[in-house]
Amino acid sequence: MPKVTDEHRAARRQQILMATLRCVAVEGLHRTTMADVIRESGLSAGAVYGYFKSKNDLILAIAEFGLALMDTELRGLAKDGNVPSPDEVTRQLTRAIVRQAESQEIDITKVVIAVWAEAVRDEGVRAIVSERIRTLRDSYAGLVSAQQAAGLVDPDADPLHVTQVMVGMLPGFILQRLVLQDVDPEGYADGLAALRR
Amino acid sequence: MPKVTDEHRAARRQQILMATLRCVAVEGLHRTTMADVIRESGLSAGAVYGYFKSKNDLILAIAEFGLALMDTELRGLAKDGNVPSPDEVTRQLTRAIVRQAESQEIDITKVVIAVWAEAVRDEGVRAIVSERIRTLRDSYAGLVSAQQAAGLVDPDADPLHVTQVMVGMLPGFILQRLVLQDVDPEGYADGLAALRR
Repeated sequence: MPKVTDEHRAARRQQILMATLRCVAVEGLHRTTMADVIRESGLSAGAVYGYFKSKNDLILAIAEFGLALMDTELRGLAKDGNVPSPDEVTRQLTRAIVRQAESQEIDITKVVIAVWAEAVRDEGVRAIVSERIRTLRDSYAGLVSAQQAAGLVDPDADPLHVTQVMVGMLPGFILQRLVLQDVDPEGYADGLAALRR
Repeated sequence: MPKVTDEHRAARRQQILMATLRCVAVEGLHRTTMADVIRESGLSAGAVYGYFKSKNDLILAIAEFGLALMDTELRGLAKDGNVPSPDEVTRQLTRAIVRQAESQEIDITKVVIAVWAEAVRDEGVRAIVSERIRTLRDSYAGLVSAQQAAGLVDPDADPLHVTQVMVGMLPGFILQRLVLQDVDPEGYADGLAALRR
């Protein structure tokens, strides 16, 4: 397939995904329909269905979009044999969240919360989301093991438990940022660092 | 007013609140209407409106219900001059969350997530919810100051930052419990304890 076609496909896919994010940010996930996304995208129904066969395909794409960002950040932190401390990881991940939220036309974190709410309500969405969060946790668990080997985290601890807490801090950051609007990456990471001294 | 009337009022109020929780757990908060709550409660419209004038009154009652549980737990932990460690507080609060989720006909944590999603989408709901979360954080901040005085947390840290992280761990616990269904209070508290050693 010629390269221009791949680029064209990627751009179209992104166009539909952004239309979905706009719809979800306003209407919530539950109320957003394929018809809404088609209208918002400015494309034909046939064009949209060529990329996403159902609303669940769109939800999967949103979940992957959000988690790919976290995963890329984690890989960047752990490269060249570098082992960052838990509070340093929290600092970089929350910075990445804010950067992403502020750089796009739509604050992706608002959409992420809509996806959580739908995952709790709907079993199909839950299956999609839980698999993706597990993938993120697996990447994180690798980092925790490296932190244990480097003496940054108690080597006798169960890496899963440490990972649950470390990943578990991120939703509360996102929520406090959106709802109370008084939290920032530096303070949040400093708070964790204080607990570790 | 005679005592029986107060009791009657409290029972009626609780009956309407439980009907609301059932509606929200199934439909989400956004789609639940006063008409749904009236139908589900089995009471007349006049009776329901006598207790809750609008959907926002119901949301406020849900937010207060959830946060009152946390607040009662925090007060219980800090009584008689006792100062629990951060991981002990996390252990007791997550235990209280699970106990409450499992003891009622409706898992209140599912409704809490619906309230978060609506708080992000709707400014009126956000005002209600942010005030209530701030109240919880204020109670928690008092505990953090006591932990600092007792040498359990770095006394030079900003108590607000420590509080943001400690409160910020709870949404991630609730989400992992509902979506991945593999987290429990003991592991979560142990994970935090490992980060503090």
